[in-house]
Amino acid sequence: MTVKKWVYFFGAGKAEGDGSWREVLGGKGAGLAEMTKISLPVPAGFTISTEACDYYYKQDKQFPAGLKKEVADNVATLERVTQKKLGDATNPLLVSVRSGSARSMPGMMETILNLGLNDRSVAGLAAVTKNERFAYDAYRRFVQMYSTVVMGLSKEDLEHPLRAMKQRLGIKEDTAVPASGWKELVAEYQTYFREKSGKDFPHDPMEQLWGAIAAVFGSWMAEKAVTYRRVEKITGLLGTAVNVVQMVFGNTGENSGTGVCFTRDPSSGEKIFYGDYLVNAQGEDVVAGIRTPMHLDQMAKTMPKVYAQLEQVRVKLEKHYRDMQDMEFTVEEGQLYMLQTRTGKRTPAAAFRMGVDMANEKLITREEALLRIKPEDIERLFYPVIDSKIDRNTLCAKVLATGINAVPGAAAGRVVFSAPKAEEWAERGEKVILVRRETSPEDVGGMAVAAGILTATGGKTSHAAVVARGWGKCCVVGAEKLEIDYQSLSMSTNGQVVREGDWITLDGSEGIVYTEALPLVVPQLPKSYEILMKWADEARHLRVRTNADTPQDARKAREFGAEGIGLCRTEHMFFTDFEFPEKSHERQRAIQEMILADNKEARVRALDRLLPFQRRDFIGIFKAMDGLPVTIRLIDPPLHEFVPHDRAKQEELAKELGISVDVVARRVEQLHEANPMLGHRGCRLAITYPEILEMQVRAIIEAALECQKSGVKVLPEIMHPLTLDKKELSILDQATRRVADDLILKSGMKLNYLVGTMIELPRAALLAGEIAEIAEFFSFGTNDLTQTTMGLSRDDAGRFLPDYVDEKKAGVFSTDPFQSLDTKGVGMLMRWGIDAGRKTRPKLKVGICGEHGGDAESVKFCHTLGMDYVSASPFRVPIARLAAAQVMVELKQAKQKRTKQAKSATSSNT
Amino acid sequence: MTVKKWVYFFGAGKAEGDGSWREVLGGKGAGLAEMTKISLPVPAGFTISTEACDYYYKQDKQFPAGLKKEVADNVATLERVTQKKLGDATNPLLVSVRSGSARSMPGMMETILNLGLNDRSVAGLAAVTKNERFAYDAYRRFVQMYSTVVMGLSKEDLEHPLRAMKQRLGIKEDTAVPASGWKELVAEYQTYFREKSGKDFPHDPMEQLWGAIAAVFGSWMAEKAVTYRRVEKITGLLGTAVNVVQMVFGNTGENSGTGVCFTRDPSSGEKIFYGDYLVNAQGEDVVAGIRTPMHLDQMAKTMPKVYAQLEQVRVKLEKHYRDMQDMEFTVEEGQLYMLQTRTGKRTPAAAFRMGVDMANEKLITREEALLRIKPEDIERLFYPVIDSKIDRNTLCAKVLATGINAVPGAAAGRVVFSAPKAEEWAERGEKVILVRRETSPEDVGGMAVAAGILTATGGKTSHAAVVARGWGKCCVVGAEKLEIDYQSLSMSTNGQVVREGDWITLDGSEGIVYTEALPLVVPQLPKSYEILMKWADEARHLRVRTNADTPQDARKAREFGAEGIGLCRTEHMFFTDFEFPEKSHERQRAIQEMILADNKEARVRALDRLLPFQRRDFIGIFKAMDGLPVTIRLIDPPLHEFVPHDRAKQEELAKELGISVDVVARRVEQLHEANPMLGHRGCRLAITYPEILEMQVRAIIEAALECQKSGVKVLPEIMHPLTLDKKELSILDQATRRVADDLILKSGMKLNYLVGTMIELPRAALLAGEIAEIAEFFSFGTNDLTQTTMGLSRDDAGRFLPDYVDEKKAGVFSTDPFQSLDTKGVGMLMRWGIDAGRKTRPKLKVGICGEHGGDAESVKFCHTLGMDYVSASPFRVPIARLAAAQVMVELKQAKQKRTKQAKSATSSNT
Repeated sequence: MTVKKWVYFFGAGKAEGDGSWREVLGGKGAGLAEMTKISLPVPAGFTISTEACDYYYKQDKQFPAGLKKEVADNVATLERVTQKKLGDATNPLLVSVRSGSARSMPGMMETILNLGLNDRSVAGLAAVTKNERFAYDAYRRFVQMYSTVVMGLSKEDLEHPLRAMKQRLGIKEDTAVPASGWKELVAEYQTYFREKSGKDFPHDPMEQLWGAIAAVFGSWMAEKAVTYRRVEKITGLLGTAVNVVQMVFGNTGENSGTGVCFTRDPSSGEKIFYGDYLVNAQGEDVVAGIRTPMHLDQMAKTMPKVYAQLEQVRVKLEKHYRDMQDMEFTVEEGQLYMLQTRTGKRTPAAAFRMGVDMANEKLITREEALLRIKPEDIERLFYPVIDSKIDRNTLCAKVLATGINAVPGAAAGRVVFSAPKAEEWAERGEKVILVRRETSPEDVGGMAVAAGILTATGGKTSHAAVVARGWGKCCVVGAEKLEIDYQSLSMSTNGQVVREGDWITLDGSEGIVYTEALPLVVPQLPKSYEILMKWADEARHLRVRTNADTPQDARKAREFGAEGIGLCRTEHMFFTDFEFPEKSHERQRAIQEMILADNKEARVRALDRLLPFQRRDFIGIFKAMDGLPVTIRLIDPPLHEFVPHDRAKQEELAKELGISVDVVARRVEQLHEANPMLGHRGCRLAITYPEILEMQVRAIIEAALECQKSGVKVLPEIMHPLTLDKKELSILDQATRRVADDLILKSGMKLNYLVGTMIELPRAALLAGEIAEIAEFFSFGTNDLTQTTMGLSRDDAGRFLPDYVDEKKAGVFSTDPFQSLDTKGVGMLMRWGIDAGRKTRPKLKVGICGEHGGDAESVKFCHTLGMDYVSASPFRVPIARLAAAQVMVELKQAKQKRTKQAKSATSSNT
Repeated sequence: MTVKKWVYFFGAGKAEGDGSWREVLGGKGAGLAEMTKISLPVPAGFTISTEACDYYYKQDKQFPAGLKKEVADNVATLERVTQKKLGDATNPLLVSVRSGSARSMPGMMETILNLGLNDRSVAGLAAVTKNERFAYDAYRRFVQMYSTVVMGLSKEDLEHPLRAMKQRLGIKEDTAVPASGWKELVAEYQTYFREKSGKDFPHDPMEQLWGAIAAVFGSWMAEKAVTYRRVEKITGLLGTAVNVVQMVFGNTGENSGTGVCFTRDPSSGEKIFYGDYLVNAQGEDVVAGIRTPMHLDQMAKTMPKVYAQLEQVRVKLEKHYRDMQDMEFTVEEGQLYMLQTRTGKRTPAAAFRMGVDMANEKLITREEALLRIKPEDIERLFYPVIDSKIDRNTLCAKVLATGINAVPGAAAGRVVFSAPKAEEWAERGEKVILVRRETSPEDVGGMAVAAGILTATGGKTSHAAVVARGWGKCCVVGAEKLEIDYQSLSMSTNGQVVREGDWITLDGSEGIVYTEALPLVVPQLPKSYEILMKWADEARHLRVRTNADTPQDARKAREFGAEGIGLCRTEHMFFTDFEFPEKSHERQRAIQEMILADNKEARVRALDRLLPFQRRDFIGIFKAMDGLPVTIRLIDPPLHEFVPHDRAKQEELAKELGISVDVVARRVEQLHEANPMLGHRGCRLAITYPEILEMQVRAIIEAALECQKSGVKVLPEIMHPLTLDKKELSILDQATRRVADDLILKSGMKLNYLVGTMIELPRAALLAGEIAEIAEFFSFGTNDLTQTTMGLSRDDAGRFLPDYVDEKKAGVFSTDPFQSLDTKGVGMLMRWGIDAGRKTRPKLKVGICGEHGGDAESVKFCHTLGMDYVSASPFRVPIARLAAAQVMVELKQAKQKRTKQAKSATSSNT
């Protein structure tokens, strides 16, 4: 039995791991190892593996046997390499202890700096650095961090004495606090520590180290980290690694500093060196956004040598990693140290630009460029900006504050000052802007639901900016003039007060905050978008259609690249006349009259009045989709959705139709269903009221014939919803063809049309082989198929589904099955249905028209099932196009990998 | 190409078909052919096959080519055999034209008698019979029948002149009408025919014959016939045959007559010759119940010779057919003719007695005896009788009328005088007694829903009696003193008036009608029932459990032969204390308090109050099921089912709990769901509120331990409802075992228990292989599985499902999938689920606990799926026991048949 290795050393140009070991070393650990190997200036240290964290949680928070010794050995090595000793009174080694999982979770887990300091070694540090003030500041920071992070004591309680002291001394900046002040504070903190925890602050560095390791492991399962993983759909990780690294100090004076930089602009994607820098500061100061940093190009002026070295690192790293890197560095007394490198987060627009640029630079292939875009981010390219038609003077008059343009796009919403309130208001449908002095990982939930985020402090790499950018969510940070009062729930600049609930508008591209809700418009797409999407279209096999019910939507979707309509819901036409809104009422009355009729003749009369409306709608849609197929679903929702449920509206309706309100009320009552989802809807309506089907088919075919006459190429596909049996579909199919063929015959023209069905009930999927004897196409209605297969009402699941998706609670599902297909259960039925259907009818056309058609993972799954097309809402058509391309590349890569493995297996056998 | 034969002759001791040709000749035709072959006295004739009827409907009501000639040829043969000619003026041949499908549908289709009469041949008939009165009576009957049956003219319009004439002549009986009267009526009818149809009454016998054939074919699709087939679940027939048979006359005088008889008593099953007889009458007079017939034993006195001959026929036929026969005969001038024989309908009790008797007589095997019982009829054995404790004098004072005891059992209900009203009232939950002068096939719908049937005329073989007996439904006929007034909706005897809506009680065993609703009790089972059910138990493999929620139900079910509880629903215990009803309120309050609690501690407090109640219930159930397994399902329904929805009750609850009514109302509102069927229910409740699970498991295990201590053998099986995922079940399984194992450990006893799950969602069936890693047993909840697989809410399907089952409308399903399993769709999932589950866990125990567990066809299907048991409601346990035995016999017979076929194929090959 080989003994498992838990700890990996790096330093002095050598490393036990490398950059490919992300799963085991975490992103940070792998980056440090890799940078060490390629001879970049990296402080020495070691990484405790994610496997140790996994073990820790599986064994009820026990460290693995052997870890103790490995850590001790690595500390010894580190002491040898650095020629310093932990806790030493003359030349002490100080280390940072940082988390780092295989996927970046910025700010979600814990860090402890300056570990190794105690009442003895602080003196050593002071002696070595010849800077007592610095040494005690470092000690104070360590005690503060240890108290809060490891012991969980109150941050606020510890901030308070610092503020009090600064006030007493009449100073503003921490940098102005004298050594005596820090000394005093260390004593105060240690007293507080003893009071609150009942024990002395630990002075043994190894005890400190084990406390810190446990705290980092613990932060893996902290609520904010779990929430972040859920929101970001991060699953399958073992845990966090722990990086123990020799401390270097950016806060030893004006010749020191710390910064975060990107190899390209993470907002625009432009190939410029981009970053923030703070002189005489520790790294946490940049990330926390407490001080507003300088631009990197200022560093070129103040520290030209270091800047040049950094620029070399930038080039080397991007070439090495073949992607934009997000780096942390520290300059200690003019000496550059790289503390971290990782693939940088970027805005969707930047992702497109970088993808296209890097492919053109031959840094990556086009296929790789395709894989670099998160399909769900594309939607954010279409987020609105403030309407440029607004007069500049008007605009200026509404400026509330300016700040840093952290994430582009614009958003309008009502002001809230806390994350919980943001969630509460958003829940009830309000658009909110979350306003905070600064954000912290605790705010992630509120940030996720906000339309935009505004902070008073922080830079482009502050927590707020990084998180918002990841989501492509409009964000303005560092609006320093903004005075935020959490107590009175208001903020003000120059006496102008904005209260909770007031509307504001953020311009994330310019970094401006406006009072009032300004009109927003959708921006032009970046050129790189068009290029990359062309590459995607060339790469994919799966067709992408759209769900569109109006000519307007159809045109929009076609702009987004839709190759037809996969789902045109006809019932919306019963409510609204999109062309002549004043006619909507007439449509509603006609359908209501139809529903209230107590015999077929009266129903037919009412339907006759709807016919011209539907025909006109279809003409508009066919024209918009000239040359492309249009799948039209006949009426689907239960009839009660068309009638008024409150007495006043019932009275109005009764009066207009000249009948008693009791008749209306009784009919509405009759239509009530215990479970409307499983009730009298879908094609069941056409079985009971064939005249509805007849009117709708007539409208479709008459519209098609008319369009064809005027030279429009029409490919209508008539779709019956909620089918569950071959005989049922056969009745509907015959009724459909009877009406259609008769009209076509009379027209003297030729018109090809298809008749098919939705597959949205388990029984339909199970009996797909029979149903395909009738259906010329299948369209999987995965919304309903998910509801019935899982016995989950989408309308009601909000009460318990979150628990099912939350890994800290039941964690039954990794994602919400209404967002991303349940490939195991629902997917099994789909696979069966497609296979059985194609066995009967090899050329059966198969698509999907549920919401999942716009979800990238689901689109990829549909490709693997051999579907012909997916259908998505217009804004999500590009997502589907890209996902369809990505799955091709992914399958190709997987095949290449298998071939390679097979080859290497063969060659190793011979 | 062989030419298809459509017509089959029988007569003069020879027949082209025989008794095994039921599918082609229909029951009547096959019986006539068979009786001819075994030398019984049968009038000659021919049968047009059901295949011709099938062709007729498939070819848009065209007769097959060649049929014309075949009919003409057969008429010629018939004329030769009988030495009479159709329409002949001196020696005319008269024929009857009767329907007859492969399965008996008494009175559902049409008959025309005396065909061949016209103005010429009537004289011939008069001459031959030397009875002008008889000849014109026959002619009048023919014209009357032809007018109504073939031409669809009004029955009432034709009855009216007859009644008028009798009044004019001052006579009461038809037999008293003189020849001149009939002559006059014939003329009147023919005039009426001309007026109404616009053409002359046809005098050409072949024209008459073709009209009659078309009318018989037409009656196959008449609404009443279609309804009957649906109610009786008769499917897969080709159509009706048409039997054209030489007329013999029971109405030529006192030496003639007609009757219907059974080889054994169809009510009791006793081996006695049993029947009704009318002197000087045609067969229709008996069946229609217009005149009240004599008992068959009177015939032994009046026509001893014929009676002896009939007795011989009885013995011969029963031996020949190996089953009780229902025969029609006519005596013409002392000469016996058999007109029909068929297997007789019988009451459920009679079926048991005959089955056991015949098996003991070695007429049939025990296996055949098992197959002879319709499982769904068993339930009717348990129908109530009037409580014998009622004082005889009291009873006598309540007699409204006496009649013929047509079908045993008793029923109480409110009087209605029409079938539509019966259906209407029954729909809204009323118990009704349908009261009619006589019933006709149009009344079948109303008869089906009535608790009992009462007619003023008719005998034991009248329409009312036959139909009601088939259903085992209490029926009294021939209560001749009853004056029924359809106009004023009342009936009376001796001035005692009963109006629509008044309660009456029928005693079908004694033939008595009582005013008021009398107390009914359940009768003792016949001895033959116990014997036959023992045979069934010996024959079956499938175990039968029961669905029971109380000790009372459990005991009852055990009496019915239940071998354990397959479903004990625990939520009923939250509503009702069956032992101490006054405690029910306390239970309800506790569960309501639990629901209204806003934190776990408060919920636990409320649950603690429920614990002793549930424990006591379980103790009672375990004791009742001593030695047998008890499957207990944890809470299943959504919580809103436990809280009051009207303001008054909410106020009461709020007051009792000392909280605001708004809090109650808000919580109730919160619990509202759009689709509760797919909502927060089943094990989802235990995921959200683990404390409910903990309390229930505690109650189960504590009860089991207590029972075990007192020597009761307990086999608890804890079942989680609505599971959809392995991980979900694993969470529940762990929570269950944690509580259970802890209690068992502390008790110091050993206790075996199982933890399993319902399979009631498609996803659970699909992923059964995984779920079986956790579940020790599966119980298919086919109610919900049917709802979700088909997307059909049982509560709402009433609006359209009838159309889906009605073969005249959509006819998508042959039966209601909530009554009999949808073996194609739901069944596919079940088969998959069982196979996948057993692959993971070969000894997985599998059962079913939906309503289908008490449906014979579904039980048989479950056997073929390899289930271990079915679970049915107590009264349906015997149904399941018998069905489980029948399927064994059926499978054995099918195997024997295959072996035989294989052998004969082998031997014919060699």
